[in-house]
Amino acid sequence: MQTFGDQPILLAPGPVPLSQEVLTALALPMIHHRTDEFSQILESCLQRLKWVFQTEQPVLILPSTGSGGMEALLINVLSPGDEVLAIISGKFGERWAEMAETFDYKVSTYNVPWGEAAEPKKLEQLLKENPQFKAVIGQVCETSTATLHPIKQLAQTVQQHSKALFLVDAITGVGATQLLMDQWGIDGVVAGSQKAFKLPTGLAMLALSDRAWQAYKTSTTPKFAFDLGKELKANQKSTTFFSSSVTLIRALDVALNSFVGDGLNQSIQRCEQLAKVTREHFETLGLTTYSKSSAPSVTALNLPETIDGKKFKSDLETKYGVTLGGGQDQLAGKIIRIGHLGEITNDLYTEGLRRIHQAMRDYGIFSKDIDSERHIQSSIAKL
Amino acid sequence: MQTFGDQPILLAPGPVPLSQEVLTALALPMIHHRTDEFSQILESCLQRLKWVFQTEQPVLILPSTGSGGMEALLINVLSPGDEVLAIISGKFGERWAEMAETFDYKVSTYNVPWGEAAEPKKLEQLLKENPQFKAVIGQVCETSTATLHPIKQLAQTVQQHSKALFLVDAITGVGATQLLMDQWGIDGVVAGSQKAFKLPTGLAMLALSDRAWQAYKTSTTPKFAFDLGKELKANQKSTTFFSSSVTLIRALDVALNSFVGDGLNQSIQRCEQLAKVTREHFETLGLTTYSKSSAPSVTALNLPETIDGKKFKSDLETKYGVTLGGGQDQLAGKIIRIGHLGEITNDLYTEGLRRIHQAMRDYGIFSKDIDSERHIQSSIAKL
Repeated sequence: MQTFGDQPILLAPGPVPLSQEVLTALALPMIHHRTDEFSQILESCLQRLKWVFQTEQPVLILPSTGSGGMEALLINVLSPGDEVLAIISGKFGERWAEMAETFDYKVSTYNVPWGEAAEPKKLEQLLKENPQFKAVIGQVCETSTATLHPIKQLAQTVQQHSKALFLVDAITGVGATQLLMDQWGIDGVVAGSQKAFKLPTGLAMLALSDRAWQAYKTSTTPKFAFDLGKELKANQKSTTFFSSSVTLIRALDVALNSFVGDGLNQSIQRCEQLAKVTREHFETLGLTTYSKSSAPSVTALNLPETIDGKKFKSDLETKYGVTLGGGQDQLAGKIIRIGHLGEITNDLYTEGLRRIHQAMRDYGIFSKDIDSERHIQSSIAKL
Repeated sequence: MQTFGDQPILLAPGPVPLSQEVLTALALPMIHHRTDEFSQILESCLQRLKWVFQTEQPVLILPSTGSGGMEALLINVLSPGDEVLAIISGKFGERWAEMAETFDYKVSTYNVPWGEAAEPKKLEQLLKENPQFKAVIGQVCETSTATLHPIKQLAQTVQQHSKALFLVDAITGVGATQLLMDQWGIDGVVAGSQKAFKLPTGLAMLALSDRAWQAYKTSTTPKFAFDLGKELKANQKSTTFFSSSVTLIRALDVALNSFVGDGLNQSIQRCEQLAKVTREHFETLGLTTYSKSSAPSVTALNLPETIDGKKFKSDLETKYGVTLGGGQDQLAGKIIRIGHLGEITNDLYTEGLRRIHQAMRDYGIFSKDIDSERHIQSSIAKL
């Protein structure tokens, strides 16, 4: 059993704990990106990413954050003046809509109450009333509220009732929940390295459907660094358009070893299990989850109104040695978010729960009488 | 003395060999970017980068390649229709001009013959004839031809004869040659992590002058991921606009230790020394350098017309274990480029030269009679 001493525990919804294999890969001596050696690594990543994205389409890697990838999805398939429907259910939905407005797309919004899942019926109605939409954009998991959306049904709705492209921010979705890009008819998917891939921040991965690649051809939004066509052309020669993020792509190659074959399902199941066990664990102890449609990648717990939630989160980090996510805007100080992505071993999670318990006991969120260790061991046994 | 066995030697103009300290930092356990711990690291980087850039202005860090940073420089200070003068003396100048055209700036070019330095007098003439230029863009070192441009004089010329902003790609310039941003009146500088900073690819660092920040306010080119104003606002709270590249920024913090105080000058002197010794070394042996204005960051050697230069470079890599830069376009197969950036110890350089010598002897570029080891030791003794 691994012990952690005063080592900090990271249980946020990204960045996430890294595996030893990834850390080792990050520290390898530098090699040049215009070499056969690197081309083989890149090719290995590009091929295996198709499996992770469940697509026959090329998957591209950009040297950017996930948000950069979200921008790339928009600007490669849309043109100024195009109408976009943004499904907004939290901070990341808001940001994507803001991004779309920046590039002069006309943004309409389907505002989903925070913590609730988008409803295919409501989407259907909006699409029927607005045949002019060129794209529908939304999150697979809205990380800020720990909410999972019914992407399969939403994709079906877009396909049946609109000519719009359906673009999804799957940054905390890929590898954490089933997402069948081709089969479900999703037109654009973006993922981020610092989530289920268990890597540092710094790579966005994206794929476009055939229809989206058609739209690329007529898109007039100016782009260069994020021009996916240029990147695709370079990828077809097993290289990247710009200098490659050698260090991160080499680590990606290692990380992808755990996604081949049944590995993808195992990654998803692990997230789902951690999420379920976490919900049950804290509900048994009297807490409630914020979201009515809990995500597998992150769980948001409501904090009692009697405590200073911002201080609680800050104390968790500095006094108890465990970093979680907090709430933003209307949720500031009201929730804490426990991430289920990354190299979360049972030992690490046990230690994380112990520290959270200690803080919750000290803050009076839990009674001092509860047998923390018994509750924790009982939950970990289910993993 | 370090021995290298069959370990590959990287002597390209970026990416470059990394120090052990940087490799160790890259392999540190992940921490969250929204923590006091990371904010302190970021702040330490942002403050010390001002010294490296020789500016009182804020220096910003983007999670992108250097080319992404070059795009950011343009789109933050220009608007569609603005006229730009691109000083072009090689591949990177061409690419920057192409980038500018993509964003609907009207690009005029000052085409400098490859391998030659831009002439302030010619620039002056162009500026006098074209008072409408909003920006002049150019490379400090044109890496593709290993050519250094007289940036101080060019900056002075722009200031005296134009209202244009002077934006420089200093990706192989910062830390490799003196570049006094504020004192020389440069309006925009971009650097890249995989050069003199001795880091992996993945971070661009930029600074704007007061005038450039004024231009930012009226720039209408749409931008979000590369919006420097948004990044600056986040930096003022010791955080980044998007998720931070924790791994690379933590490594940057370590790398910057060698730039404080006289470290910046030492970095520049080391590059200049390596470049001078390299030129003299190969000239003594009968080779010539390509550039008439040799850069300190990289040296381009002309290859004899009798050999297949592409095969030679490829063989160097696969058979002799040393990766150099090659020539592009009109220079394809005609030059090899030896980089002087990164953690190039005397031991590493000795081994690199030995491998280059062996290849050059086998290819008949050098006579079999020359005493390679004596030549190499004599050159290394000057470092």
